[in-house]
Amino acid sequence: MRHLEGAYALIFKSRHYPNELIACKRGSPLLLGVKELNEGVCNASAFHDAKFLSKNGNPKELFLSSDANALIEHTKKVLVIEDGEVVHLKEGGVSILKFDNEKGRNGGSLSRPASVQRALSILEMEVEQINKGKYEHYMQKEIHEQPESLTTTMRGRLIRGGSCKAKTVLLGGLKDHLKTIRRSRRIVFIGCGTSYNAALAARPILEELSGVPVTMEIASDLLDRQGPIYREDTAVFVSQSGETADTLHALEYALENGALCVGITNTVGSVIARKTHCGVHINAGCEIGVASTKAYTSQIVVMAILALAIGGDTISNQERREAIIDGLFDLPNKIRDVLKLDQEMKDLAKLLIAEQSLLVFGRGYNYATALEGALKVKEVALMHSEGILAGEMKHGPLALVDENLPIVVIATRDACFSKQQSVIQQLHARKGRLIVMCSKGDAASVCSGGACRVIEVSYVEDCLQPVVNVVPLQLLAYHLTVLRGYNVDQPRNLAKSVTTQ
Amino acid sequence: MRHLEGAYALIFKSRHYPNELIACKRGSPLLLGVKELNEGVCNASAFHDAKFLSKNGNPKELFLSSDANALIEHTKKVLVIEDGEVVHLKEGGVSILKFDNEKGRNGGSLSRPASVQRALSILEMEVEQINKGKYEHYMQKEIHEQPESLTTTMRGRLIRGGSCKAKTVLLGGLKDHLKTIRRSRRIVFIGCGTSYNAALAARPILEELSGVPVTMEIASDLLDRQGPIYREDTAVFVSQSGETADTLHALEYALENGALCVGITNTVGSVIARKTHCGVHINAGCEIGVASTKAYTSQIVVMAILALAIGGDTISNQERREAIIDGLFDLPNKIRDVLKLDQEMKDLAKLLIAEQSLLVFGRGYNYATALEGALKVKEVALMHSEGILAGEMKHGPLALVDENLPIVVIATRDACFSKQQSVIQQLHARKGRLIVMCSKGDAASVCSGGACRVIEVSYVEDCLQPVVNVVPLQLLAYHLTVLRGYNVDQPRNLAKSVTTQ
Repeated sequence: MRHLEGAYALIFKSRHYPNELIACKRGSPLLLGVKELNEGVCNASAFHDAKFLSKNGNPKELFLSSDANALIEHTKKVLVIEDGEVVHLKEGGVSILKFDNEKGRNGGSLSRPASVQRALSILEMEVEQINKGKYEHYMQKEIHEQPESLTTTMRGRLIRGGSCKAKTVLLGGLKDHLKTIRRSRRIVFIGCGTSYNAALAARPILEELSGVPVTMEIASDLLDRQGPIYREDTAVFVSQSGETADTLHALEYALENGALCVGITNTVGSVIARKTHCGVHINAGCEIGVASTKAYTSQIVVMAILALAIGGDTISNQERREAIIDGLFDLPNKIRDVLKLDQEMKDLAKLLIAEQSLLVFGRGYNYATALEGALKVKEVALMHSEGILAGEMKHGPLALVDENLPIVVIATRDACFSKQQSVIQQLHARKGRLIVMCSKGDAASVCSGGACRVIEVSYVEDCLQPVVNVVPLQLLAYHLTVLRGYNVDQPRNLAKSVTTQ
Repeated sequence: MRHLEGAYALIFKSRHYPNELIACKRGSPLLLGVKELNEGVCNASAFHDAKFLSKNGNPKELFLSSDANALIEHTKKVLVIEDGEVVHLKEGGVSILKFDNEKGRNGGSLSRPASVQRALSILEMEVEQINKGKYEHYMQKEIHEQPESLTTTMRGRLIRGGSCKAKTVLLGGLKDHLKTIRRSRRIVFIGCGTSYNAALAARPILEELSGVPVTMEIASDLLDRQGPIYREDTAVFVSQSGETADTLHALEYALENGALCVGITNTVGSVIARKTHCGVHINAGCEIGVASTKAYTSQIVVMAILALAIGGDTISNQERREAIIDGLFDLPNKIRDVLKLDQEMKDLAKLLIAEQSLLVFGRGYNYATALEGALKVKEVALMHSEGILAGEMKHGPLALVDENLPIVVIATRDACFSKQQSVIQQLHARKGRLIVMCSKGDAASVCSGGACRVIEVSYVEDCLQPVVNVVPLQLLAYHLTVLRGYNVDQPRNLAKSVTTQ
């Protein structure tokens, strides 16, 4: 371990020690699951290696895994292995030793490793959460359970207000830090992949309500540039797993620089949840499909609530705040509506099955939707799709437009609607193969002459529209993948949690 | 004109008025060229419509154009038409009337338009500048003249320092504003397309030397979001033409919000050059190819000099500053070196001629190079190419990698080199078709076993490396386009200056 660089979780097996396993980790997660076969006889909720080795009469099974989802069908009792610890499994017993890494590195005498005693954790999840139920794939299940996952995400966080009380929001994990956040020089959103896109979707409403400049940083780019992070900054780290390597390194970098660090994760007890000063759990429930779907929509909703919390109640923005809160309450119903497009998206997928390329145009609140829709198609359907800021069309992408290349244009109602209408007209003039997503009833105004395919979605308050709009694109990516014959839950070359750089 | 929306420059001709033309404009540029056929007889350097109509004995030719490049072969004397003016050409004479737009709009009485008197400007360019010389295309000429255009860009701005004087830089147009810029809350780079990419390439060195956070904004996105711009911000507007509609609107927005506005353009007298508080001309010379090449490299160099000017001399950064200034002096020679790759890039283009997709991976200083290289291929070669931040590879793009998709990886020497080596190994493990750009002598360390194609480029100081690295990609885009049989100087659907939204 003293010689290895980077992040890892490793298990060693040797023919010379046939009944033993050695496991160690740095950076990447590693869990030891403990299953007592005679549960109830002994109520062992604390773990002592000595006790374990002495065998108190209960036979045990031990499991090593990087992910709780793999353990839950066997046991809920786990020990979270920490950096620098070495797990030794031998003849049904286990001992855990902690190496004092730094000492050894500095050339001092190699001290004997100390043995470790720590309490077992209980996983807060149920086996049902990792069943596919009536669905064929996890990604399909997770797309369709978004009305429920969003309800869970918002539970207890929206306050409807009484007869004379204003509607408001409550984020327990942040309430002591809101003043500091409001006084920040900048709010810096940091994430990777889908989590970055979710933050991008929430950025405009946070800028509007907070009055603080919001900077976007892809975690790896911030680290590559060693970009400036100041004591007066609030850095918000977004990660479904809470274990994303780049985001975690960016967190350590921001902590060194003295910024207030806020975590937005879906995994209680994850490294990012533990190392940030405060944070919000998105409570979207366990997500197993590698391509993130329900976590994305829950992340946006949490960040919209965050924007409301930071913004605070003022007379001038009261109407806007109430409209957003009403929109949030109504969001699960709107998602149920849009999920009815399933068959329509399957039909569209059939048309696109043999394409090599796809462009997705969006702007304003839905620039993120374009990026995220394209990312979904790219990562599961293995089609080269690219999200494009519609305003950049004339600065290059328009050259690609001809009668063959399919283009999705997101043009739901908001302040940018007329600009998007103009984009559609110009794409149309170049004979572009258009698929236009618009608000219900707008089909005629986005697509005169019926020359393009239209996806009509429900209207919600503009800043929440990305939550609705991404769903048809998730369905499209799902059906495209299944029709093209790829594995939708384990896309080629990708992992669910990117725990190495 | 009172009824039209948006930006335009229009010329009207009517069968009812056979010898007349009416022209008007708002937002878009419009020039009136005046050619005196008996030059020397009358030294008319000022323009009076009355005088013009009265005919002082000199026959004249009049030209209307949105671009000085179209006029220069006829005349250098031009009148820049302003918003709200109406030009009336009749029987060899011209009169210009100014409508008081606002008055008419507010329902007041329609006042008679006032006639306009204004001095003629003299274009500072030569016909030779718009000749292709020995080259077949403007884009080719402009790629190959980069050693000279960069020399012109730097002329008078780098000071080598005497025996005991430090090397330093001088930007005349900014020297009175440097203190204000250093005290800014943020420096905000605003641009579109290639100009945005140039700013992105210069961002890390500006962050490093200034200690001020640098925010990137695509002009249209800033407007769509109505993103926050503060009085304490310095907003830097980058546009080759100085007429880009979105950048110009963003400038007006920033002026309203009270920010200090700095212009970086290639066109003296352009709207952005005139409306900003101060600025720098990149002096790259007239650029005619629609795909920007020499303007891109000159923009990066100007912004690197800007970073040195803002950073100021301190003991702690003296060594770094001198290394950058030495690197700048040496840059034209390094570009001459890299232009020798012309034939190699043509051979590579032959291999890629039939491809549908191309990915370009970069990170750190060369994230912008990846975006810009991909943009060049996209806009002229009409191939779906995408620039990808290498650190995001595992968050989606890796799924696309197989033995067919060609991937360019930029891995020249800098602090990110070992991370890029790891990226190459991982792409290699997925059998990716790699084309690796590396520093001279690094072929073996980026590509063990010779399984990938290597482009070796000269090493320069890390923050200037994007200037060198983009050149082979420009050459690749150029040759790909010619081999694929497309018009390299006027790509499908695109215009040189995007003067409408």
